[in-house]
Amino acid sequence: MNQPSDKQHLILTGDRPTGPLHLGHFVGSLRNRVMYQDKYQQFIMIADAQALTDNMDNPAKIHDNVMEVALDYLAVGIDPSKSTILIQSQIPELTELTFYYMNLVTIARLERNPTIKQEIILRNFERDIPAGFFTYPVSQAADITAFKASLVPVGEDQIPMIEQTNEIVRRFNRLAKKDILVECEALVPEIGRLPGIDGKAKMSKSLGNAINLGSSEAEIKAAVKNVYTDPLHLRVDDPGHLEGNVAFIYLDAFDTDKEAVAAMKEHYVRGGLGDSKVKARLETVLQEMLRPIRERRQEYEKDRGHVLQILKQGTEKAREVAAKTNAEVMAALGLKHF
Amino acid sequence: MNQPSDKQHLILTGDRPTGPLHLGHFVGSLRNRVMYQDKYQQFIMIADAQALTDNMDNPAKIHDNVMEVALDYLAVGIDPSKSTILIQSQIPELTELTFYYMNLVTIARLERNPTIKQEIILRNFERDIPAGFFTYPVSQAADITAFKASLVPVGEDQIPMIEQTNEIVRRFNRLAKKDILVECEALVPEIGRLPGIDGKAKMSKSLGNAINLGSSEAEIKAAVKNVYTDPLHLRVDDPGHLEGNVAFIYLDAFDTDKEAVAAMKEHYVRGGLGDSKVKARLETVLQEMLRPIRERRQEYEKDRGHVLQILKQGTEKAREVAAKTNAEVMAALGLKHF
Repeated sequence: MNQPSDKQHLILTGDRPTGPLHLGHFVGSLRNRVMYQDKYQQFIMIADAQALTDNMDNPAKIHDNVMEVALDYLAVGIDPSKSTILIQSQIPELTELTFYYMNLVTIARLERNPTIKQEIILRNFERDIPAGFFTYPVSQAADITAFKASLVPVGEDQIPMIEQTNEIVRRFNRLAKKDILVECEALVPEIGRLPGIDGKAKMSKSLGNAINLGSSEAEIKAAVKNVYTDPLHLRVDDPGHLEGNVAFIYLDAFDTDKEAVAAMKEHYVRGGLGDSKVKARLETVLQEMLRPIRERRQEYEKDRGHVLQILKQGTEKAREVAAKTNAEVMAALGLKHF
Repeated sequence: MNQPSDKQHLILTGDRPTGPLHLGHFVGSLRNRVMYQDKYQQFIMIADAQALTDNMDNPAKIHDNVMEVALDYLAVGIDPSKSTILIQSQIPELTELTFYYMNLVTIARLERNPTIKQEIILRNFERDIPAGFFTYPVSQAADITAFKASLVPVGEDQIPMIEQTNEIVRRFNRLAKKDILVECEALVPEIGRLPGIDGKAKMSKSLGNAINLGSSEAEIKAAVKNVYTDPLHLRVDDPGHLEGNVAFIYLDAFDTDKEAVAAMKEHYVRGGLGDSKVKARLETVLQEMLRPIRERRQEYEKDRGHVLQILKQGTEKAREVAAKTNAEVMAALGLKHF
């Protein structure tokens, strides 16, 4: 992982507003963003336009989740005085860049994109994939380059997207005969994907195995009760297994007392430590971690007008940056007449 | 051909600025536009953004031809007080509409478009077709619907494009639960394609068989000399043939004295009328027709600043219309936050 630590670097990151954010987002990205905002310039994009590429049948869901995601951001400690939070759809320059970048990418190249291939299978799209979804790597390239982001936090599986962006950057700069656009680098987090409470590889709202950041105390309690552990660990005295044991995976991810966790693991493997004790500790850890987040969220929820104001200011700031890049791109394409 | 004659109807028409306009454009569209501007509201779009979808390697050519096409328009009698001339790329709302309409069309549907299929073969693109070119029917739908055009003059071969647009209109209106977008109708001209001077089916700059609207007297003279007639008509006394005889096709298209043309045809078929006499008449007709066009063009060429002003005013007027539609579309998609 390359982490140059100066404010010269601009990070672009964000989320599709399709539902409330959960512990998986917290581990995979939100927690890092709270750190990044002190080290880098950070633009956090609520990617509603991208979310519509496969939610065109339910635009109201996307609309409403823009605010929910913003509340989650503020709740986890993203500070609008340090990070720029923006709403993608409110920056039309991004669609304009997408439009022209589409001429720099062939259909064959888009078909070869492994992330898109995977998504097509996941969503059972086959050839009935919406054109907007099929071409979203181009839209992503527009987002990244509009802000001249040099670092883009992504999972391993998203690295082909970064490669696609850099291909567009190189093709465009060659065409423009100057370095207008900036190549970016993937920033792959050390901790990968958090499993769901059911042990499935990915925590996700649609799988119903998520613990949302805004969960109530009772919801956390209930979720922890259902956390998948070791199905072979029938009696307290039996030796337990750690692989795939979600209770311990979560403790590793969230318990700050690493020594205590190590001791519990040893005890569990040896036998004599019941799941109920492990889960009790996990519940304590999660309740303590999520309480201030929930409380901050509730504070912000009381004044959504203020949150909207934060989004407006962030979006305006980001739009200025995008408009500047856009003007350079348009000029290079001979699209300046007046 | 459906031609309701009231100002309720808005026509959207235009050209890709890839080169000077020629007699083929004059017959197929420009001449009609001069009539339409008295009957309908008419928006004439210089489609530079669309031209870039397969000219990304030479944006300067597209830029420069925007002015050339505008000069041709004014030269043939398109009156900016009656018609609205606009530059496509200067209306970013069109790219925004394209972006969201992309979610309403599948890749499979675009592949089925016969016009696109034909173009892929013509241009030897195969799978290396630029994504922007492949999806240009969506961009066309954006253009047509942005201005709420109800009539779109197109050749027979472009009718699938109109169908694609109307599919998007219906899908969008169903989604929005109200009739925001307007379905359009193809306006197919009675006179079809004009052959090139060499007898090839299509007059085109790239085939080198065109007579440009701005041609000099000497250029017209030379072109008429090369006009394809009847290769079997070797001696003046031989009976001549009219099929595929470009000299007579042009006389049919441009000579206003239909009786004289009919008499010449009869004489030619009977034998005794030499090609040189037919061509002499054709030259007279073309010189007379093109002289005022060339002279008007030369007048406008002297003040390109004025032409640019006309384009600016037309584009501003058109942008207002597009922005209004765009706001309705964005609102229906839940993309209004501030």
